[in-house]
Amino acid sequence: MADRVKIGVVGYGTIGERIADGVAMQDDMQLVGVADIAPSLPVRALVESGKAYPIFCGYEEAVPDLTDAGIPVAGLLDDLLEEVEMVADATSPGVGEKNKAKYQEHGVKAVFQGGERHEVADTLFSTMANYDAAYGKDYLKCLSCNTTGIARQAMAVDHAVGLEEMICVIIRRSADISETHKGPVDALLPEEIPSHQTTDFQIVSPHIKCVTSVVTAPVCHGHATTMVFDTKQPVTRDEVIDIFKECARLRMFRLADGFISTSHIFDYCRDAGKSRGDMYEVPIWEESVYLDHDGHRVYSINMIPQEAIIIPENIDAIRCMLKMQDNWEDAFDRTNENLGMKKGR
Amino acid sequence: MADRVKIGVVGYGTIGERIADGVAMQDDMQLVGVADIAPSLPVRALVESGKAYPIFCGYEEAVPDLTDAGIPVAGLLDDLLEEVEMVADATSPGVGEKNKAKYQEHGVKAVFQGGERHEVADTLFSTMANYDAAYGKDYLKCLSCNTTGIARQAMAVDHAVGLEEMICVIIRRSADISETHKGPVDALLPEEIPSHQTTDFQIVSPHIKCVTSVVTAPVCHGHATTMVFDTKQPVTRDEVIDIFKECARLRMFRLADGFISTSHIFDYCRDAGKSRGDMYEVPIWEESVYLDHDGHRVYSINMIPQEAIIIPENIDAIRCMLKMQDNWEDAFDRTNENLGMKKGR
Amino acid sequence: MADRVKIGVVGYGTIGERIADGVAMQDDMQLVGVADIAPSLPVRALVESGKAYPIFCGYEEAVPDLTDAGIPVAGLLDDLLEEVEMVADATSPGVGEKNKAKYQEHGVKAVFQGGERHEVADTLFSTMANYDAAYGKDYLKCLSCNTTGIARQAMAVDHAVGLEEMICVIIRRSADISETHKGPVDALLPEEIPSHQTTDFQIVSPHIKCVTSVVTAPVCHGHATTMVFDTKQPVTRDEVIDIFKECARLRMFRLADGFISTSHIFDYCRDAGKSRGDMYEVPIWEESVYLDHDGHRVYSINMIPQEAIIIPENIDAIRCMLKMQDNWEDAFDRTNENLGMKKGR
Amino acid sequence: MADRVKIGVVGYGTIGERIADGVAMQDDMQLVGVADIAPSLPVRALVESGKAYPIFCGYEEAVPDLTDAGIPVAGLLDDLLEEVEMVADATSPGVGEKNKAKYQEHGVKAVFQGGERHEVADTLFSTMANYDAAYGKDYLKCLSCNTTGIARQAMAVDHAVGLEEMICVIIRRSADISETHKGPVDALLPEEIPSHQTTDFQIVSPHIKCVTSVVTAPVCHGHATTMVFDTKQPVTRDEVIDIFKECARLRMFRLADGFISTSHIFDYCRDAGKSRGDMYEVPIWEESVYLDHDGHRVYSINMIPQEAIIIPENIDAIRCMLKMQDNWEDAFDRTNENLGMKKGR
Repeated sequence: MADRVKIGVVGYGTIGERIADGVAMQDDMQLVGVADIAPSLPVRALVESGKAYPIFCGYEEAVPDLTDAGIPVAGLLDDLLEEVEMVADATSPGVGEKNKAKYQEHGVKAVFQGGERHEVADTLFSTMANYDAAYGKDYLKCLSCNTTGIARQAMAVDHAVGLEEMICVIIRRSADISETHKGPVDALLPEEIPSHQTTDFQIVSPHIKCVTSVVTAPVCHGHATTMVFDTKQPVTRDEVIDIFKECARLRMFRLADGFISTSHIFDYCRDAGKSRGDMYEVPIWEESVYLDHDGHRVYSINMIPQEAIIIPENIDAIRCMLKMQDNWEDAFDRTNENLGMKKGR
Repeated sequence: MADRVKIGVVGYGTIGERIADGVAMQDDMQLVGVADIAPSLPVRALVESGKAYPIFCGYEEAVPDLTDAGIPVAGLLDDLLEEVEMVADATSPGVGEKNKAKYQEHGVKAVFQGGERHEVADTLFSTMANYDAAYGKDYLKCLSCNTTGIARQAMAVDHAVGLEEMICVIIRRSADISETHKGPVDALLPEEIPSHQTTDFQIVSPHIKCVTSVVTAPVCHGHATTMVFDTKQPVTRDEVIDIFKECARLRMFRLADGFISTSHIFDYCRDAGKSRGDMYEVPIWEESVYLDHDGHRVYSINMIPQEAIIIPENIDAIRCMLKMQDNWEDAFDRTNENLGMKKGR
Repeated sequence: MADRVKIGVVGYGTIGERIADGVAMQDDMQLVGVADIAPSLPVRALVESGKAYPIFCGYEEAVPDLTDAGIPVAGLLDDLLEEVEMVADATSPGVGEKNKAKYQEHGVKAVFQGGERHEVADTLFSTMANYDAAYGKDYLKCLSCNTTGIARQAMAVDHAVGLEEMICVIIRRSADISETHKGPVDALLPEEIPSHQTTDFQIVSPHIKCVTSVVTAPVCHGHATTMVFDTKQPVTRDEVIDIFKECARLRMFRLADGFISTSHIFDYCRDAGKSRGDMYEVPIWEESVYLDHDGHRVYSINMIPQEAIIIPENIDAIRCMLKMQDNWEDAFDRTNENLGMKKGR
Repeated sequence: MADRVKIGVVGYGTIGERIADGVAMQDDMQLVGVADIAPSLPVRALVESGKAYPIFCGYEEAVPDLTDAGIPVAGLLDDLLEEVEMVADATSPGVGEKNKAKYQEHGVKAVFQGGERHEVADTLFSTMANYDAAYGKDYLKCLSCNTTGIARQAMAVDHAVGLEEMICVIIRRSADISETHKGPVDALLPEEIPSHQTTDFQIVSPHIKCVTSVVTAPVCHGHATTMVFDTKQPVTRDEVIDIFKECARLRMFRLADGFISTSHIFDYCRDAGKSRGDMYEVPIWEESVYLDHDGHRVYSINMIPQEAIIIPENIDAIRCMLKMQDNWEDAFDRTNENLGMKKGR
């Protein structure tokens, strides 16, 4: 492991645990450890899982809480920061910003998540959109789950045939499965148009016009989005499907094959042996691909698996910040290969 | 009641009971009776409600089922058909088509609902779109709930500033509150694009291009739709809001006032004393109205209260078929006034 | 109205608005007005409803918020308290306790709701259980919705054949329809046994042993409870059904008639013309009534319509505190008659 | 693998795929293959998972459907039946009964699932309740998920301190996550008391009195049950917790540790690396354990993970029918060890 870059994950919740696994799967990275401050269910599950990730404690006073719960503590966050070159910070919104001082003190780079304020980072990051602008930076912030999924599709289309403008109507899942404090139970909640995804997307990709709309629905297993792409060059339906298939972070599914809902895709992933039933790709339903305006307008519906979608981009961010690959395609391909994402499906 | 037109309602379920109430509220119509074939909950509720609608039984053999349940039977469907000039048929999909022979036999006109096949009727009907084409016809079919709501908005915009093209992303409520056999519990179900609403809308309004997309979500109290209107003339945000407010079948609500979900609007209607908590208008959220493309593109999000939305158009259809008003505006205004729908809100 | 007792309702939310309507329906009470502090949806709906309840504002500074929203303000809470003999306080939990000083200052009695701490009141109140102990008191607190429903059934059985002990397994609805901030979306949440209803019930009825258990489920339209009654005297199934039918605050429904879920009962009430689709009675499913232990054990399943269930007991509390009837049966019967609840069903 | 018993799984759906994995994990069994008739999602997922289970096709005509979908077909069901000593049949309800003739023809024993009619089998089977009575039989039927979970707890208590009588109030999950056609969305559905679990339990354990009640709720990740055990010998709370912990098929969880809902337990299992997020044990909440009646009555609340709960009993049934262990404890222990279930938690 001598020549691998040393990485830590701070905040071991829904996102942090998945980034940790993602890092541990990379052939050029070493997960030195993860840090948290309480014996939360993910931390307890880590111990039960048998994964040998060293667990560091955020601060001295919290150590007994962990050890009392049978969690072995490898050291404090400061110890972890001594050993690593950079961290992925997946703490609760606002905490990352407070942690940043510590990272600076230790000379450690950090990639933050969508819940932090933009100001925490040098720029927002989307592999396919602004790898060059983010190259070598000390602090990046990944896009949130929906914007990550939207950006992948937008850039795939843009790289292939030029994307003039995009409308995204997001049906937002209201809560992850164990966020039982969040509602609604039986209601749809609209938001002001444009929603925050518009702004975020245009920071990473200012040349593509975009309007996003959000309605929240009471489901747990994935957002869904209807996309409308206005392309620069005309395109056929088959070409669109090929563009999507050629991007290893998108994956086509067919209603006709039985993938009739977001939860069918989640259940399929459970059955296919994916860790936690997670999917790193953006599923797109083939039957939803519809061409209009003489091939200049493409409609499609996709799912955004909110728990896992941003893992690949976090890994890419590490490659980008530590200058492990000097162009996005190489970073992208290596992450994909290590995570098992493939072109052609 | 001598000079009122005599109307019957066949099929006393979720839609039929609401049409019956709507007819009973008109100052130029007489509800002669309603017909059904079993002591269903709506029929039992009718008796408990104290409303004096005569109840007719679909066929002789079913009479004891009704009387055994304490439902007073005023006669058979054939008796009802002898007394009326026309009926609204709100039976289960497919039954209306079978009933049509009976209606023809009795020389009774009929308006059918969205669940029937198009072939049952001379044309689809939408007051604001094709009143003239439907005028005096014997058999009409109303648009389904979502298409009715879409058509109202489209025509309001078209009449004011010309509507070139429209995109509608429908988040479909999966079940009415007592359709407990219908799922999903926790999933989003996409459909092929374009969905059937595209075809239906373009039958009543062939000059406006339209693409509709549907994703079903597990909620009971209303669909929601994100609309994108491309107008012929440029328009300002204030003008758009005025256009919506000027149409008595649309009504603006504000997130800032506390109307933050479809269920808040339903609950508000319950509190405001509306029968069943129903709303005849299409609620539109003011904060969702967004202008783009130099005033040629309008975004907005609305709710479609699926149980009651098509009542006004059913009443209009009666006026249209029986030639009670010779233009849509007069039919529309009279229905609105009798149902308590007002401009300016 | 000269000889009617003058009542105010403080806090015009889900419960307050229903108490106000309940008071307004009594032939011996006058609703002088309702008080709130903001133009909430219930307050806005009151204006749209056309009901002529004078609206008082909690404090001077909040008046412009109301008037700006088009809410006519009849005066301040202090003005209301000058005019009334007592109030029903249905403010948010904890606020009632703060309001109490004001009520004491004005010499006004008050009945509080289940969300307040027990200490706010002289005793908890349940008409059928402890009317005498509460008679003439200045401050009472009604039981919460589930305990109210449980107490009615317990006392009906106890009065008829003696109730030795009771087990209640409550499936709690997680949120009212417009409490969209409350979850869960897809989970069941157990609680410690015994739950708080045990304690509350035994305050009003210490001679009946009781253990309650709670699991929360993601539904909006009513709690459901499986009851196990151990009776002193043996009883037959028909006798049990008669005992339930003889109590005007319980009502039997049959699965076989189509009442197959809590939401079917809610929908039936909407169709039967009940205000807001509310039900004051506790629905009990006839098919769930099961006898065991040689007629000493009775099982049954009921629904608790959480929004309206405590209205009758609030009205009874007024009769009790103002000494309008000197025994519970007379208070009970008069409230029932005015609210339309009947024996025999 | 020479000395391992050869097993097939017929019907590769939610249950079949889990039985297949369970069999494959046993050190004394060989999974010869699985059979199905269509390229369903579980079958497709099997291929993607990389598990090398041979896939057999139910009948000749269905082979092209599978091969066209890229499913490698190892042979027909008849071929599979030639190779195995027995099968677990997890086909859709009613199909197992039709398959039985085939099994008889090939001289193959079979264990059926809860959806089949009782008549398909020689007896119902529950390891801890009637292993001896089932020993060496040709056709067994496992209890359904809820009854399996109930029986484990009942027998654990009965073996330790004697169980006189039991009340089980089941809150049934309405649908698995990909059963999107099943509702309700927002309702609770009660059933007649006693529900079918009463009958089933008393077939395997006639000496213990039992009454079960069912209410269905709109959740996907597990049933929950409130249990009331009346014991022969008095017991303390600590003893009860020890009794549960000593049974490797039950597992204690604490609300205080963060396991506050059924979905938290599911999510924990996903994080702990369990296949599909499955749990074989019955989770029991420690805080729900409550003692009454001088130690003769025990209350508790548990979760029934409906997808995986019956896997251990299916494996036990194989041991029982093939006379691999001549007493239930040995069969039980070996299955537990191979599936990773442990005492003491």
